[in-house]
Amino acid sequence: MDPIKVNLAEKFDLFEDHWNPRIIGELNGQHIKLARLIGDFVWHQHENEDELFLVIEGTLQIELADKTLMLNPGEFAIIPKGTLHRPKAAGEVKVLLFEPKTTLNTGNLDNEFTRKDLDRI
Amino acid sequence: MDPIKVNLAEKFDLFEDHWNPRIIGELNGQHIKLARLIGDFVWHQHENEDELFLVIEGTLQIELADKTLMLNPGEFAIIPKGTLHRPKAAGEVKVLLFEPKTTLNTGNLDNEFTRKDLDRI
Repeated sequence: MDPIKVNLAEKFDLFEDHWNPRIIGELNGQHIKLARLIGDFVWHQHENEDELFLVIEGTLQIELADKTLMLNPGEFAIIPKGTLHRPKAAGEVKVLLFEPKTTLNTGNLDNEFTRKDLDRI
Repeated sequence: MDPIKVNLAEKFDLFEDHWNPRIIGELNGQHIKLARLIGDFVWHQHENEDELFLVIEGTLQIELADKTLMLNPGEFAIIPKGTLHRPKAAGEVKVLLFEPKTTLNTGNLDNEFTRKDLDRI
């Protein structure tokens, strides 16, 4: 594929809904995704995939079994596979995700928060 | 590994040299790296790895065979494997890299720019 420049702010402007990641890049079997988050997500884990959250705007909390990470813009966390976690956001958060193409947003769960066949923007 | 918060600015403050990437995270066989760049790098390609450059500060040019990408903060480009490219920076650039653990900074070349056994910070 011909290399192109991708502007994160322009991509975020293409959607408004929450907890519905969009794919904005692909490399080495991994996806680069963007998502807007607000409120509490569900506790879940990914059996086979480590997951990276890089905050672009807002403050993201990631609840873990024994602590809560608070991520501000320019901060990221890697959640290893098999780690129970719950993302939550008091205000809207814009986040970049880096994870294998096989990753389902709700991990081991299939419920009303599950998003499959994500749009590429 | 216990999930932790990683602050990009704090990590950049831990080194000053150019064209010498540091590893700041690992997931799914991929590395997250930071590098400071200035001046012209060498033309090279990666035979087996796609490479992502996300600009955090400054303006990065990526010369390709038929065009030059200009990346500002909040912008990224994915350079597919086998694509000849040359990063260059008129002023200092801070960049985040996503790429497989196997990636050598000079790709198919082994020269004075080559960095092996990168430090983890």
